[in-house]
Amino acid sequence: MPLTDLPLDALVDFRPNVAEPADFDEFWARTLAESRAAGGSVVVTPVATPFTDLIVEDLTFPGFAGEPVKGWITRPLRSESERLPVVVEYLGYNGGRGLPGERLQWAAAGYVHVLMDTRGQGSGWGTGGDTPDPHGSGPAVAGFMTRGISSPDTYFYRRVFTDAARLIDALSEIPSADTDRIAVTGGSQGGGISLAAAGLSPAVRAVLPDVPFLCHFRRSAALTPKAPFTEITQYLATHRDTEDTVFTTLSYFDGVNFARRISAPALFSVGLMDDVVLPSSVYAAYNALTVEDREIVAYSYNGHEGGQLRQWTRQAEWLPPRLG
Amino acid sequence: MPLTDLPLDALVDFRPNVAEPADFDEFWARTLAESRAAGGSVVVTPVATPFTDLIVEDLTFPGFAGEPVKGWITRPLRSESERLPVVVEYLGYNGGRGLPGERLQWAAAGYVHVLMDTRGQGSGWGTGGDTPDPHGSGPAVAGFMTRGISSPDTYFYRRVFTDAARLIDALSEIPSADTDRIAVTGGSQGGGISLAAAGLSPAVRAVLPDVPFLCHFRRSAALTPKAPFTEITQYLATHRDTEDTVFTTLSYFDGVNFARRISAPALFSVGLMDDVVLPSSVYAAYNALTVEDREIVAYSYNGHEGGQLRQWTRQAEWLPPRLG
Amino acid sequence: MPLTDLPLDALVDFRPNVAEPADFDEFWARTLAESRAAGGSVVVTPVATPFTDLIVEDLTFPGFAGEPVKGWITRPLRSESERLPVVVEYLGYNGGRGLPGERLQWAAAGYVHVLMDTRGQGSGWGTGGDTPDPHGSGPAVAGFMTRGISSPDTYFYRRVFTDAARLIDALSEIPSADTDRIAVTGGSQGGGISLAAAGLSPAVRAVLPDVPFLCHFRRSAALTPKAPFTEITQYLATHRDTEDTVFTTLSYFDGVNFARRISAPALFSVGLMDDVVLPSSVYAAYNALTVEDREIVAYSYNGHEGGQLRQWTRQAEWLPPRLG
Amino acid sequence: MPLTDLPLDALVDFRPNVAEPADFDEFWARTLAESRAAGGSVVVTPVATPFTDLIVEDLTFPGFAGEPVKGWITRPLRSESERLPVVVEYLGYNGGRGLPGERLQWAAAGYVHVLMDTRGQGSGWGTGGDTPDPHGSGPAVAGFMTRGISSPDTYFYRRVFTDAARLIDALSEIPSADTDRIAVTGGSQGGGISLAAAGLSPAVRAVLPDVPFLCHFRRSAALTPKAPFTEITQYLATHRDTEDTVFTTLSYFDGVNFARRISAPALFSVGLMDDVVLPSSVYAAYNALTVEDREIVAYSYNGHEGGQLRQWTRQAEWLPPRLG
Amino acid sequence: MPLTDLPLDALVDFRPNVAEPADFDEFWARTLAESRAAGGSVVVTPVATPFTDLIVEDLTFPGFAGEPVKGWITRPLRSESERLPVVVEYLGYNGGRGLPGERLQWAAAGYVHVLMDTRGQGSGWGTGGDTPDPHGSGPAVAGFMTRGISSPDTYFYRRVFTDAARLIDALSEIPSADTDRIAVTGGSQGGGISLAAAGLSPAVRAVLPDVPFLCHFRRSAALTPKAPFTEITQYLATHRDTEDTVFTTLSYFDGVNFARRISAPALFSVGLMDDVVLPSSVYAAYNALTVEDREIVAYSYNGHEGGQLRQWTRQAEWLPPRLG
Amino acid sequence: MPLTDLPLDALVDFRPNVAEPADFDEFWARTLAESRAAGGSVVVTPVATPFTDLIVEDLTFPGFAGEPVKGWITRPLRSESERLPVVVEYLGYNGGRGLPGERLQWAAAGYVHVLMDTRGQGSGWGTGGDTPDPHGSGPAVAGFMTRGISSPDTYFYRRVFTDAARLIDALSEIPSADTDRIAVTGGSQGGGISLAAAGLSPAVRAVLPDVPFLCHFRRSAALTPKAPFTEITQYLATHRDTEDTVFTTLSYFDGVNFARRISAPALFSVGLMDDVVLPSSVYAAYNALTVEDREIVAYSYNGHEGGQLRQWTRQAEWLPPRLG
Repeated sequence: MPLTDLPLDALVDFRPNVAEPADFDEFWARTLAESRAAGGSVVVTPVATPFTDLIVEDLTFPGFAGEPVKGWITRPLRSESERLPVVVEYLGYNGGRGLPGERLQWAAAGYVHVLMDTRGQGSGWGTGGDTPDPHGSGPAVAGFMTRGISSPDTYFYRRVFTDAARLIDALSEIPSADTDRIAVTGGSQGGGISLAAAGLSPAVRAVLPDVPFLCHFRRSAALTPKAPFTEITQYLATHRDTEDTVFTTLSYFDGVNFARRISAPALFSVGLMDDVVLPSSVYAAYNALTVEDREIVAYSYNGHEGGQLRQWTRQAEWLPPRLG
Repeated sequence: MPLTDLPLDALVDFRPNVAEPADFDEFWARTLAESRAAGGSVVVTPVATPFTDLIVEDLTFPGFAGEPVKGWITRPLRSESERLPVVVEYLGYNGGRGLPGERLQWAAAGYVHVLMDTRGQGSGWGTGGDTPDPHGSGPAVAGFMTRGISSPDTYFYRRVFTDAARLIDALSEIPSADTDRIAVTGGSQGGGISLAAAGLSPAVRAVLPDVPFLCHFRRSAALTPKAPFTEITQYLATHRDTEDTVFTTLSYFDGVNFARRISAPALFSVGLMDDVVLPSSVYAAYNALTVEDREIVAYSYNGHEGGQLRQWTRQAEWLPPRLG
Repeated sequence: MPLTDLPLDALVDFRPNVAEPADFDEFWARTLAESRAAGGSVVVTPVATPFTDLIVEDLTFPGFAGEPVKGWITRPLRSESERLPVVVEYLGYNGGRGLPGERLQWAAAGYVHVLMDTRGQGSGWGTGGDTPDPHGSGPAVAGFMTRGISSPDTYFYRRVFTDAARLIDALSEIPSADTDRIAVTGGSQGGGISLAAAGLSPAVRAVLPDVPFLCHFRRSAALTPKAPFTEITQYLATHRDTEDTVFTTLSYFDGVNFARRISAPALFSVGLMDDVVLPSSVYAAYNALTVEDREIVAYSYNGHEGGQLRQWTRQAEWLPPRLG
Repeated sequence: MPLTDLPLDALVDFRPNVAEPADFDEFWARTLAESRAAGGSVVVTPVATPFTDLIVEDLTFPGFAGEPVKGWITRPLRSESERLPVVVEYLGYNGGRGLPGERLQWAAAGYVHVLMDTRGQGSGWGTGGDTPDPHGSGPAVAGFMTRGISSPDTYFYRRVFTDAARLIDALSEIPSADTDRIAVTGGSQGGGISLAAAGLSPAVRAVLPDVPFLCHFRRSAALTPKAPFTEITQYLATHRDTEDTVFTTLSYFDGVNFARRISAPALFSVGLMDDVVLPSSVYAAYNALTVEDREIVAYSYNGHEGGQLRQWTRQAEWLPPRLG
Repeated sequence: MPLTDLPLDALVDFRPNVAEPADFDEFWARTLAESRAAGGSVVVTPVATPFTDLIVEDLTFPGFAGEPVKGWITRPLRSESERLPVVVEYLGYNGGRGLPGERLQWAAAGYVHVLMDTRGQGSGWGTGGDTPDPHGSGPAVAGFMTRGISSPDTYFYRRVFTDAARLIDALSEIPSADTDRIAVTGGSQGGGISLAAAGLSPAVRAVLPDVPFLCHFRRSAALTPKAPFTEITQYLATHRDTEDTVFTTLSYFDGVNFARRISAPALFSVGLMDDVVLPSSVYAAYNALTVEDREIVAYSYNGHEGGQLRQWTRQAEWLPPRLG
Repeated sequence: MPLTDLPLDALVDFRPNVAEPADFDEFWARTLAESRAAGGSVVVTPVATPFTDLIVEDLTFPGFAGEPVKGWITRPLRSESERLPVVVEYLGYNGGRGLPGERLQWAAAGYVHVLMDTRGQGSGWGTGGDTPDPHGSGPAVAGFMTRGISSPDTYFYRRVFTDAARLIDALSEIPSADTDRIAVTGGSQGGGISLAAAGLSPAVRAVLPDVPFLCHFRRSAALTPKAPFTEITQYLATHRDTEDTVFTTLSYFDGVNFARRISAPALFSVGLMDDVVLPSSVYAAYNALTVEDREIVAYSYNGHEGGQLRQWTRQAEWLPPRLG
């Protein structure tokens, strides 16, 4: 439960050298272009739930390679007659979209809330996920962090980040959504995905990652005591001659490199006693932002749970002026 | 993660002999009468939150000894113009009511949701509680389970259960609440409190405890591997000559004894791999029910998290026909 | 470290009712026929190693769907001029074939030793694996036990067990191998795979599973305290309505059902303090054998490590008379 | 078991800036004055024990708010006819005075030994305590460290430290005690209380804290891995906006601030592998002493157990010349 | 912390079949005769301590093979002029006699207290031991439980139990000791040694073992979850073919076999949540007693700490009428 | 699993001041001379094993004080007709030589492989050891690290290191061994022993320690979190006044002091996430080498398992040019 990383005053100025591949932008432009070319359709269907005073809909949209990805849309009754701003939320590691109704705050606060299922995951906690990942893998640790890690083309998060960006594309086909007012958010892995979505999709107007995972892979693999960064460590412990390959692959997915490309205002959070996502990896991404309108809330005595509803309340205050 | 108790077929018929004090009803009649006599007023005040499509209000009501207890009322917009059925929810061990907005499902499903803060607690997880417990204690383990345990009159849960029953009384002063349609629910400690509330308050029309704690204290103290039942074990390990006193006190608070007195329909849940609340203690209470309209959902592969939103979804289906 | 299961005298007679699908044989006949139809070639290439007094070769053979699977052949120098009996070995959970030279005992004892890489695995311990698994999956726990578990057709072990049987087919193309004298062995997952190989391939003349995993899934998922059976438990904890589907799928892969079909002599081992593979699951398979020439060595004070080299020494004595 | 803090040469010079409230002395003067004004009587009664060669008596004295606090007096037979020097001992966290006879060393060494029960505690280890704490609390972690932490007036240790000082007052009514020769001691929490007693009571002639707890709260809450300092961390993790309030309250109780006020000779001990009380927090207090006659014994390879009887033996050598 | 063994009503009647070697008595008669023949002298020397009101002396006596073993004598001042009854105490696993003054209760209660150092041990906790064990060992687990276990002649506890019996012999040379009034006691290993001493030495008039270790080795090695019985398990896990040899050796040292031979009144204690010494192993010894004057105090909610000072207080009441 | 010590660039230059006794060489010269004077004979006997294509022989040689020590010789068939280079291997902590056949790599690579049993050990893992240690000890922690630690003459490793050097002497009596080509190796404790053997025996032509244990005792005892260095810490925690004695003894056995004396080429390995043997202790020894032909392979993501077969493969490449 004690501090897990540098003291706060060092974190505030922590700007490590994180490798960026020369063809980072090209890689992602090609990746998105290919998936957009694969087509697929957005399907929104009503779903029977116990909710009488909010609306929940089942969403299917084309993700990586046009493959169908699931989500839930949750929105106020009045969104039947007016377009409302959108908050897209991505999920933590190995969670799934679950049953309708897990996360109602944004809808109750007047947003169209779109929760993206994470392909292949959805089995670690909660009430399950519904999206397969139809891609195999080379030898991998029992987890998602090293699937396809021998190349950026086959790496698991290439598919997930593409899903995330393609969901932003799909919003234009959701009638209740005002696509001029899109924010992305998520905790842990969801925070990492939201950095990728904001870095890849200019339509994103605000990014609100909580205790974001998937940043500064090299330092995190060396120093993080708990899973899931340790999956990378375990892989390298077995595949002892692949260190360069692995970190080259990961450099295409590092939240720090996405942060450099984000032009939307940003509100981060971090827990200084976090032993799953080291605070220095969060500050590495935060300090890489070039946008001026940014803020980070440091919870000095919290671990990976971060600020919980307190941070959400801060987000709900911070967001409206940014979305206009 | 394996099974923690008897196999399911033995649980289904588990009807242990749980001691009941001769003056159980008298004790509680006196306790409630005294607290009702202490008076106090119900105060509902609007509270500024980010929510635009649900209403949240701050509640203060007189609990044990008339002392003020806090809560949140969360309800649909349309409850401004019509009285809606009520779900009262009690909290798990050492949680607090937190910030407005932690639990929105019942309100979004068309209920007036009233969340009771637990006095003295609110500091173990989440975003905090706001209700003091102005009563001291004899020597106690560092926890709530043994505070005042030397007598039923001073025991911590006497105050909490009285708060719970007094909240049912207070509903009549909440304009949006239809007091002919009251249900009580809660997980873990909240499940135990809901059994007490249903056993003490005839106005309760349905009781929906999840993985209820505070049942069959004697077996639980002997066999439960994890906190908080172990607080009782630790107390008895130190105060080695108090076993009779302790279990006499606890018999006034045992969920099994409240279950015998419940006349409302009941929907329970239980996790067969629960190592915090042993399944046999849940079945001990469930099998003590005399009401015919009862059901228990057993989650074979879950621990203390139970059914989570899946169980809530089942509750939301089950409840409307019972409230009429 | 204490006993983890029934006492030995109860284990010896433990013959539980394990479900077997009506189309078990048809499923596997179809599966093998399809993979055999997919073709593919067996490639054996010399490999430079430090070994001067044993020969190691790199093996590639067509497995499930004709996909290439790797292995090592290790054999005595004199196998250049005479065909020798064969011991095929399968690997424990998430191990890989590693570098040449991990397991030299069988070759030094005069056998052609063929070590099969496990597709997709090879990253949990040791010096790595080399075989990809080019098949995706629906939502799954971070592990191999639940990949594709929604159907026997997509389940991970369908591919692995087919690889195992196809390796027996491939032996006929290995010049040093005497295909009239084939034994299969392996520890833990490797023991489970060897049961499948022996059940599926009549060419197998002896089966020597150590502390075999993958038997009596239903009991193991309910009672095993440690990974990897707990992956199934965790999946069912999340996907709460899939219990029937999951155990139907698993019934096509249960070592108990393969054991019923084995006609080769068998030498098992079991550790009575094993908390990874419960002894009762091993006896469930052992007691399902119909072959008369069978033996099980129980290590009373060992866990999942079983008998280690002591059991290998027993195997090396037991095997020659069976292979003739 | 390795070192838990700075290396010894850095500890020796560790003089951190610990906040001290401007009204520290006034707060304590007022507190003691109020409790002295509340009156109450000192009662010493013989107690039947198995001891024939030492005398044990039951002590009740007026503590905070005049409330009765228990203790044991243990003394040599010859103290019937002569006044002997006094060692007052305070207890570790959640211990109680127990049964007569737990600690006989000081009496056997010729002192009147007075062991103070800690109000509300006495249930964590040993043979129990007998002193209630008749004061309630706002929301608190399950422990004693955060009870009433919202204000110095309501904080738990205000009552305990006042009890400790009032016990020094009470010694004048114990016939066997020579009040010109009073020392205070205790381990862990008992060490922290002894610093407070020595800082508050000019009658104390020597202070001998072992591995003293309750020093430098801010650093300890940030860096200590184990309970009970973590109770503060947990409280701040939940009550995220109370950091200033909490540390303001704690500054009235910090052993560093009491150490600055101690004029009696001091003998400290510290364990350099202590993970319950960080060595730096002990040195923070020790280095704040202004008295010249001071010594600290560092046990390089010990944790929170410190020097045990070795340190007591050193204390028993060190004390006589100081008491004269 | 839950119950670790059979329920109390089954324990009370637990009379397992524990093997006894035919030459048990002969083995011990020979062993004691040889050591007595080895001679050696008893040396009692004054020791400078801080104690003014009790006397502590350093004891050296001839143990196994006449080798010197250390101890402390602690006694009341009045024992200078009168012989007092004796309590001999043996120590828990890997403790040592420590510094003078660790255990003063018996002396303060009017006994000559003789604390025996355990040869070779004294380094696991406390303030150290002073007695070497000048005997080597065959391969052994890192601990004392398997040293010399290949034969009763070389087994570690042969030497320790002989020391224990030879200390009873030595009492006749201690002037303050009344050898008509000798009791033996000890906790855990000390309880096991006291059973041996009482079984071997007719001069012992009362035996008071607390949570005695070293009973029913076969069941304990199979079922005890924690060290040190697990040392035997670990040895058998490595030396897989030595089970018969090991348990034959241990049968010469089993507390159950000593209990059968005890003719002195006995007061046992047991903790029903003990996971170091299983309650059934204690009852196995207790129920093997043939003496009618026996009692066992069961602490239902305690682990290996047992009754602590509460049990000592019971002992101090129980003992005087037995010693006359 | 994260890094356990200094970053790699600091390790590379880590040259701490490690104390060396003035009579280090004299102590070892005397020790070896005495043991050589004790005589004893080397006995090599054929052993029946399952191996047909490698030869295994049982070895007995005179070690410390001429006492018999066991080993296995494993060698290629062709060594019947030609002398081959020798690799002597020492074992990890509390392992034994086990059954014939545990380690076949070196023999299969064309070496006479001689595996030395470690006296007194052989019971912690694997298939057991066969060599007693006929020497007793003063008080010691339950382990081997503190046996006889009060003097270099009685310290356990004096006997083990002498055995190791005497085994080099014995090679001249093994017909298959080419004593002009001797290398020593081993992992963990075996690495530490190989440093001693190479420092003491000029006949050693190459030394290949893996993750060598027993280096820089003072730092290791202060900072290593896991056993077995913690045995020293525990001893010092109990025997609080022996720090100087203990570290004086250990200075005669420190791998750093042996490294200074090694003239053979050296190939080390180290795991940067090793929490059993801190990387800094390995570099302390490596950087103390004065020989120019040296290399260290750092495994950045491995713990105490180090490079496993990958490192062995590197060793097998590196060794032939050094042995000529």
